[in-house]
Amino acid sequence: MLEAGQRKRAENPFEDLREALQGGALQQVRKLVNALHPAEIAQLLESSPPPERYLVWELVDPDEDGEVLLHVNDDVREDLIRTMEEDELVAAVEGMDVDDLADLLQHLPDTVIAEVLHSMDAQNRRRLEAVLGYPEDTAGGLMNTDVVTVRADVTLDVVLRYLRLRGNLPDLTDSLMVVNRFDRYQGVLALTDLLTNGPDLTVAEVMDREVEAIEANTRAEEVAKTFEDRDLVSAPVIDENGALLGRITIDDVVDVIRAEGRQSLMGMAGLREEEDLFAPVWKKARNRWPWLAINLVTAFVASRVIGAFEGTIVQIVALAALMPIIAAVGGNTGNQTIALIVRALALGQVTPGNARRLLGKEAAVGLLSGLVWGVVVALFAYAFYQDVLLSLVMGSALLLNLLVAAAAGVLIPLSLRALGRDPALGSSIFLTATTDSMGFLVFLGLATIFLL
Amino acid sequence: MLEAGQRKRAENPFEDLREALQGGALQQVRKLVNALHPAEIAQLLESSPPPERYLVWELVDPDEDGEVLLHVNDDVREDLIRTMEEDELVAAVEGMDVDDLADLLQHLPDTVIAEVLHSMDAQNRRRLEAVLGYPEDTAGGLMNTDVVTVRADVTLDVVLRYLRLRGNLPDLTDSLMVVNRFDRYQGVLALTDLLTNGPDLTVAEVMDREVEAIEANTRAEEVAKTFEDRDLVSAPVIDENGALLGRITIDDVVDVIRAEGRQSLMGMAGLREEEDLFAPVWKKARNRWPWLAINLVTAFVASRVIGAFEGTIVQIVALAALMPIIAAVGGNTGNQTIALIVRALALGQVTPGNARRLLGKEAAVGLLSGLVWGVVVALFAYAFYQDVLLSLVMGSALLLNLLVAAAAGVLIPLSLRALGRDPALGSSIFLTATTDSMGFLVFLGLATIFLL
Repeated sequence: MLEAGQRKRAENPFEDLREALQGGALQQVRKLVNALHPAEIAQLLESSPPPERYLVWELVDPDEDGEVLLHVNDDVREDLIRTMEEDELVAAVEGMDVDDLADLLQHLPDTVIAEVLHSMDAQNRRRLEAVLGYPEDTAGGLMNTDVVTVRADVTLDVVLRYLRLRGNLPDLTDSLMVVNRFDRYQGVLALTDLLTNGPDLTVAEVMDREVEAIEANTRAEEVAKTFEDRDLVSAPVIDENGALLGRITIDDVVDVIRAEGRQSLMGMAGLREEEDLFAPVWKKARNRWPWLAINLVTAFVASRVIGAFEGTIVQIVALAALMPIIAAVGGNTGNQTIALIVRALALGQVTPGNARRLLGKEAAVGLLSGLVWGVVVALFAYAFYQDVLLSLVMGSALLLNLLVAAAAGVLIPLSLRALGRDPALGSSIFLTATTDSMGFLVFLGLATIFLL
Repeated sequence: MLEAGQRKRAENPFEDLREALQGGALQQVRKLVNALHPAEIAQLLESSPPPERYLVWELVDPDEDGEVLLHVNDDVREDLIRTMEEDELVAAVEGMDVDDLADLLQHLPDTVIAEVLHSMDAQNRRRLEAVLGYPEDTAGGLMNTDVVTVRADVTLDVVLRYLRLRGNLPDLTDSLMVVNRFDRYQGVLALTDLLTNGPDLTVAEVMDREVEAIEANTRAEEVAKTFEDRDLVSAPVIDENGALLGRITIDDVVDVIRAEGRQSLMGMAGLREEEDLFAPVWKKARNRWPWLAINLVTAFVASRVIGAFEGTIVQIVALAALMPIIAAVGGNTGNQTIALIVRALALGQVTPGNARRLLGKEAAVGLLSGLVWGVVVALFAYAFYQDVLLSLVMGSALLLNLLVAAAAGVLIPLSLRALGRDPALGSSIFLTATTDSMGFLVFLGLATIFLL
């Protein structure tokens, strides 16, 4: 029964809730909303168009406001914050973890930030400032400062008694950090080792010194890779002198991993990852216009390439009908290569040593595909126009444009990366620009040489 | 020093190693390779073209073979398994976790599977069969059976003594599972609660009964969402009767999340997620041909649309130069919408209730963009051809094709989803097919009506 219910809810998330909302049963909506986890409330808000969104937000338990704001994407967060009074915002962030607070703080109005800082005790303020000192996409920005530390020279029994005295441990604590009296990181004491070893042993005898700490300036993607490769739940973060600053936990890493995947997908098409599904129309449109403008410019370039061959087209009008085939197949094939390279770059599979090899491989694939499908295309063209030379031009142009597509598909993301940019961002738009212009040039050029 | 070294290694992974490999210093390569984690060795193998790949594989410590095989992608795994003798394979999988073994087993030759099953003790074989009974992409397929269970009526002190007697706990154990004497799942006892509560309390007094178990048939993506929403490290898995079967750990969930992101990226372009970067050329080419063939068919359809207007083009050859602009802008704009919808579907943000609203929103964005950029395009066209009517046709066609792009961008992934398919798979190819054909039809159609 329970399981059937669970499955149903997952297939049709929030269905009861939406019904209650439609029916105006606000007390019921409030109950249903606040039975959800903050992350689920965030999902509900993201998938609700305004004004439904504001109504739901109004009904969320104020104690959950901060957590929910953390989970929604940037655009929706901005939208929700706009609807809140200053004192509501201050109340919302009270009692949040330092790393979460650091993430959220930058999105709040200055007056709210001042008030939040003012209301914190000195220790927490110092911790917050430590996290705020690092960019959001580094280990320092991801870390939390709620570390439980122990010394190497005490016995496990002392640690056990200390923990009972403490009465609780921060979420996602799978190990305690061992530091010396200068706060230098020494190793970790896993809770499992604490539990399975004799209480008379010292921490030094049981701790794991092999766990490498992450330096605070390490990039977030690299942190994610380390967690993934080594199956970590949490990892210590140190400054350049080896002093323990805090720890990173897997929940924040999962967010990084999730965002990375989405970013490439959205980035290839020239979109920001954080776009709100239900942003106002003018805002959505404006977000897309920079790339639309670039796209228009490149399309005009391709158009001018065709323009240069107008004399040829007037004589053989079939060329006008056939040329988009060359462009379309080049564009789609090149996009396959780009997707492959963007993924390989994200996985760290592309190195200076193998980039040339990779280019050769993709070019060879383009050559083979071009030979096989060039013949197919030539046969089709012959079927329609019964012109051998035209068919040969068609097949050769397809072959050449597939080589262009392979080269552009490898070189565009690698060049973006070399320029220090996101290799996915807009790559698809640059690629079709290349395969369109070159496709038209090659096809109409060959036609002008051989058919006139 | 340590940190600088870490950073360098991450920027230039395996650089020393590749140098040693180039120089033929095999003993040094062996040492460097076996200092890496299995996941890093997997990455090295994936980024090494054969025959370098086989050489490295030969040098990997046989004890690590199984773990490395787990971490490489499907195509590379198949490639490596082909190079191994039967007894090497049997040795490689010995001592692996049951969930990992279940993943790997299906990729091994039947004779090896038989031998592995034969060599297992009855308990492990029963466990393996339990995991193998569920599809790979369900909670049952993801779970491991190495659960440590306790009863609710014992005291924490008894549990503590039991754990010390046990001497170790499985990796990523953050909680013990509480079951009754019929093996029914009752709740979890977090290690942190075990450590911070008095030893005289009973498990029943301390355990968390709120943690919902995951039913074994739950889809992997849903499991990932639950882990992400609730910041879990591990979760119990039960059968339809509530009996505890095993547990899922965050490391396997991270793999699911990572794969999901990559899958959308590769899928949009019509590629499989597991493609080997350095697969043989003919294999790579063949992988891409099904979509290339579909693409060619749709391109020919678009070509026939143009063919129908050859009479118009002969009279106004400028149309041939201008028409690809309409198609290109439509294609790229539609791809933005697709990326947005594919992401929203993955996040569970699209429901039957808001799909229509979303379509309206995207159509409104298309309308606004079409009005603004239609004017820009019309002005450009006028600058080149000094023809008012032609410019008006151009602007109107752009507007109309942006509406087509918006509709297709929403409807294609939603339709694929409704058909039970991956909403990303090939969506980009279907979209450009639509925007090309419709773009040409609208532009040349309007031109035929108003310009002839």
